Amino acid sequence: MIQAASTEMLKLLDDLAVFSAPGPGVTRLLYTPEWSQAQLFLQGKMAGFGLKVGTDKVGNVYGRLAGRNPDDKVILTGSHVDTVVNGGKYDGAYGIAAAITAIHYLQETFGQPLRSLEVVSFCEEEGSRFPLTFWGSGHVTGMYDGSEADTCADSEGITLKSAMAECDYNNFEDTMNQRVDSTRRDDIGAFVELHIEQGILLEKTSTQIGIVEAIAGQRRFTVRVSGTANHAGTTPMNLRADALMGTAEMLLLLERLAGEAGEPLVATTGRLEVIPNTPNVIPGEVQFTLDIRHSEAEKLDRFCSDTLIAFNEIAAKRGLNLDLTPRLSALPAPMNSELCYGLERICQKQGRSYRNMVSGAGHDAQLFAPRFPTAMIFVPSRDGISHSPAEYSSPEELGVGLEVLTELLYELAYK
Amino acid sequence: MIQAASTEMLKLLDDLAVFSAPGPGVTRLLYTPEWSQAQLFLQGKMAGFGLKVGTDKVGNVYGRLAGRNPDDKVILTGSHVDTVVNGGKYDGAYGIAAAITAIHYLQETFGQPLRSLEVVSFCEEEGSRFPLTFWGSGHVTGMYDGSEADTCADSEGITLKSAMAECDYNNFEDTMNQRVDSTRRDDIGAFVELHIEQGILLEKTSTQIGIVEAIAGQRRFTVRVSGTANHAGTTPMNLRADALMGTAEMLLLLERLAGEAGEPLVATTGRLEVIPNTPNVIPGEVQFTLDIRHSEAEKLDRFCSDTLIAFNEIAAKRGLNLDLTPRLSALPAPMNSELCYGLERICQKQGRSYRNMVSGAGHDAQLFAPRFPTAMIFVPSRDGISHSPAEYSSPEELGVGLEVLTELLYELAYK
Repeated sequence: MIQAASTEMLKLLDDLAVFSAPGPGVTRLLYTPEWSQAQLFLQGKMAGFGLKVGTDKVGNVYGRLAGRNPDDKVILTGSHVDTVVNGGKYDGAYGIAAAITAIHYLQETFGQPLRSLEVVSFCEEEGSRFPLTFWGSGHVTGMYDGSEADTCADSEGITLKSAMAECDYNNFEDTMNQRVDSTRRDDIGAFVELHIEQGILLEKTSTQIGIVEAIAGQRRFTVRVSGTANHAGTTPMNLRADALMGTAEMLLLLERLAGEAGEPLVATTGRLEVIPNTPNVIPGEVQFTLDIRHSEAEKLDRFCSDTLIAFNEIAAKRGLNLDLTPRLSALPAPMNSELCYGLERICQKQGRSYRNMVSGAGHDAQLFAPRFPTAMIFVPSRDGISHSPAEYSSPEELGVGLEVLTELLYELAYK
Repeated sequence: MIQAASTEMLKLLDDLAVFSAPGPGVTRLLYTPEWSQAQLFLQGKMAGFGLKVGTDKVGNVYGRLAGRNPDDKVILTGSHVDTVVNGGKYDGAYGIAAAITAIHYLQETFGQPLRSLEVVSFCEEEGSRFPLTFWGSGHVTGMYDGSEADTCADSEGITLKSAMAECDYNNFEDTMNQRVDSTRRDDIGAFVELHIEQGILLEKTSTQIGIVEAIAGQRRFTVRVSGTANHAGTTPMNLRADALMGTAEMLLLLERLAGEAGEPLVATTGRLEVIPNTPNVIPGEVQFTLDIRHSEAEKLDRFCSDTLIAFNEIAAKRGLNLDLTPRLSALPAPMNSELCYGLERICQKQGRSYRNMVSGAGHDAQLFAPRFPTAMIFVPSRDGISHSPAEYSSPEELGVGLEVLTELLYELAYK
């Protein structure tokens, strides 16, 4: 299609990346000045394209192209405007820029749609400032009711509530729909999110489009292994209760079990602390995290329980104590199969290489999937790198995603 | 023997423990006020017992009971006065308190010896303030010449040289012997160090006395394993280069090889750091320490090279990079076999249970062993705990060590 649209989208992405705290990459945390400026910029941009713009009470920004049938449910598309600290310019922002561009293009090319089309720029998804995630989509889908803002605080002790009150962009009211509950919505006919993959599967397999069949469920644990700290020189090997050696055995077992379980299961220990962490002292305690994901709830749960049983056996065999604390449990979110099928047909029609896949990363779409027909489209990420200034997808790859999104929105809103 | 002597020694130990920085246990770091006060206290104590006292240029404290044959070499006994941070009251201090008590007892019981007897309170052994060890015994044996003091600095940037200059106890000159080289000595006929075991072997085997045959050699390395940091959710197991999983395999291999090598080899990873150390990021880098000890140099070296070859194979197999930095290499130090035999006879005569053993921990004696006939005597440590406020040996155990030391000194100086 539409070289002009693609160019417009790339310009929008570049512009959005300017709204950042100082430092490498893009840092745009919830309710900071740069975040406010970005949301205001998007409102201005959408208003300039003739969309009706507005916000809700937590600062999600909407832009609407009203349809001819006002009673039909809304076709919603977009992603999150916030980033991690020193993140890239594509994660989240791409889904917003493409959504605005697609609706602008559809309006100019086909005029008013049958069903209303809306862009959403979610206020928050990453959990980078406050210890919660999906603050934007969680309000739209009813997971949050706002009461969380009283107690939840950032690393400087500022609560969500006071962060909102102090925010430059001090306009948190429902300017859009005057709904009774101004953040939660029940009028959505479909939600479509376009996003960079943040993984290496599409690149490794030279595939242009990933059609997400499900967003993996995730369970997180903290594991504490306790043994006996002792002198590294004077304690014979057979009289040790070395918490680190026990941990090493658990990690290798985790890796083996994950390999046996096969894709899409992934299991990771990303954080590990040794106590006392001194070269000549046998580790008395190790704490580490487990992050386990699968697209099927039953398989996820079985893997977790099998792993924890095996961990306990290792601890018992070595005279170590094992404490386990569940930290997070998110169910898998299957996407709408009709929309997936529609995406396949669009890719075939446009001659795009595509594959069905599971998203191991979490996305706003997972909150919509249980309530509304939801689809998610991926484009390749160079080297799978994300949450980094090195995050990159080529203009061509981004353009292909835009074309697929535009076609799907056309089918949903105009047919 | 000598209930009175034992009581005197225990009182001395209690008194020494008073010289400590605030906090749990005993903290007496080189050239701090509490360190100065302890060295002054010991000089006063020894002078009170009629010993000739003095210091050398780094603050080692001596107390001499001159022998009848002034040309005979000196029988030296003692240990180090410094401690780790929040250490116990026995490590080092016991060897000094027992030495003073033994010589006091011998003088009172048998009068002037044939050969001069000397107590030494080494200024430093632990390496707890400055990044070097054996600052005291290293000067006496010629390992250091003092030039190290210009550049070596503590964690606050204070050099050893300025720490000495600012030290309360500002009296670093050779008041003892007016030797040309005032710290290094060549006039030593034997060095005997009595020390707590800092291990669990004597306690586990209900043995009163450990006769140290050798102090283990030690090699330390820092290992850096580099892989690729990546998203824990979006990176399939078979596309990972997980530095922590590679490390886990290396650690288990280390443990297996150490078990196969058998005693007295010990191998420990006490410190380990994960980068970036975030629950949902696959570890891109791990750094860990290796501490490997054995009483035979050839076996120590072979174990190290076998281990490092195997580590490289693991890294290559997993697509990881391995960097290895040697940090320390100390040769094993065999003790004098005649003195060991003498200690066996004394234990038999006194009806003490004893065993020959290797010291996995380093001690001042290891610097004397290559130059002078050297012996080392251990008494049990409760639960093997050391470098902790919980460090403990019972008055009876300490008294048995004192009796064995006293007898050996008698044989060396009076016969």
